[in-house]
Amino acid sequence: MNYIEPSSHYADIENGELGNNSGRYEKKLSNMEGIYADNVAFQQAVKSGGEEIVYKVTDKHPAARHGDMIIGMTQMQPGLIGDEFYVTRGHIHATANRPETYYGESGEGLMLMESPDGQINIQELRPRVMCYVPPFWIHRTVNIGSEPLVMTFFYPADSGQDYEIIAKSGGMKSRIVADGTGWKEVPNLSYTPRSDDEIEQVLATADKED
Amino acid sequence: MNYIEPSSHYADIENGELGNNSGRYEKKLSNMEGIYADNVAFQQAVKSGGEEIVYKVTDKHPAARHGDMIIGMTQMQPGLIGDEFYVTRGHIHATANRPETYYGESGEGLMLMESPDGQINIQELRPRVMCYVPPFWIHRTVNIGSEPLVMTFFYPADSGQDYEIIAKSGGMKSRIVADGTGWKEVPNLSYTPRSDDEIEQVLATADKED
Repeated sequence: MNYIEPSSHYADIENGELGNNSGRYEKKLSNMEGIYADNVAFQQAVKSGGEEIVYKVTDKHPAARHGDMIIGMTQMQPGLIGDEFYVTRGHIHATANRPETYYGESGEGLMLMESPDGQINIQELRPRVMCYVPPFWIHRTVNIGSEPLVMTFFYPADSGQDYEIIAKSGGMKSRIVADGTGWKEVPNLSYTPRSDDEIEQVLATADKED
Repeated sequence: MNYIEPSSHYADIENGELGNNSGRYEKKLSNMEGIYADNVAFQQAVKSGGEEIVYKVTDKHPAARHGDMIIGMTQMQPGLIGDEFYVTRGHIHATANRPETYYGESGEGLMLMESPDGQINIQELRPRVMCYVPPFWIHRTVNIGSEPLVMTFFYPADSGQDYEIIAKSGGMKSRIVADGTGWKEVPNLSYTPRSDDEIEQVLATADKED
């Protein structure tokens, strides 16, 4: 039996990266096409700064899969497209009965969550606050501050990500926009609720032991 | 379908407790019988302060089990029994192919880990350092500082804990003792290696999908 070696990972909040990581990806502003309500503002922003990295993720994937866990860090820049705060693409887990915990490290954000049947839940992300995203919730992070939002995260290694679920419904049901110096939730006018069949398909991705 | 509600949890480092928790336990010094090498020193310490709470754990268990995760916080007092630093009881997961991530919040500690075949691995626990404990490793925390050691932790909800594995082998293979102002690893003279059959029994607790 070859046991996986234990490992240590320094969460470098200043640089927004998990030490001793095994994976990394970055999203540029130009990768966020179709996410924001104001497409004119988006295209203008891309023209002037499309190569800007709007968020990066570093993580540690274990060698094993089922039963194991992934740990990592996200650093997300502040910004607005029109009056809408910068967001991550957002996803539901491909095996949808998998949860995730996000842990605020610096900056101010929100976790915007939506259940398959269209309930919205919003939790604040602040330093030393954990947000528990239960099984079956679509989730996306929003930077509502003026500084980078840095979070660590923890989730089962066999979760997977389905990024298409949000595109299929025309976005998440709510958007988060600037409201004076704060934020407010507004309806996404492009949103189409999932049909019963679509909801069933999401639930059916849960593994059989659930 | 009733979806579990998302939740937020403030990690209160000062008080060593996870906010909005659903579970708690505490260990007194008198509960730690048989853990330390110097039993005379242990009995004296119990006589003078056996009701002292040496560590406490607060956590959030989700409603669901398989595929879900548990998050929590441990606060552990500093101290010595003879020259041996205060430790937690330690455990392996009852479903042994389940990992755990510990995340240093304050204080100075070590994660002392042992594979079923008797390999020892030691990682430092410091603020903003994550220690990834892979599947199949017995693990115990050691407070090597003079202040409380506070950690948050994250692990699969269907892991379970087997605390007996350490007692059966006469303790973990190594002990952590004071060495001047630092620490050193010394052999545990009461330790008996696991037999091949015992190792097989541990590995057999892994779930079938692994």
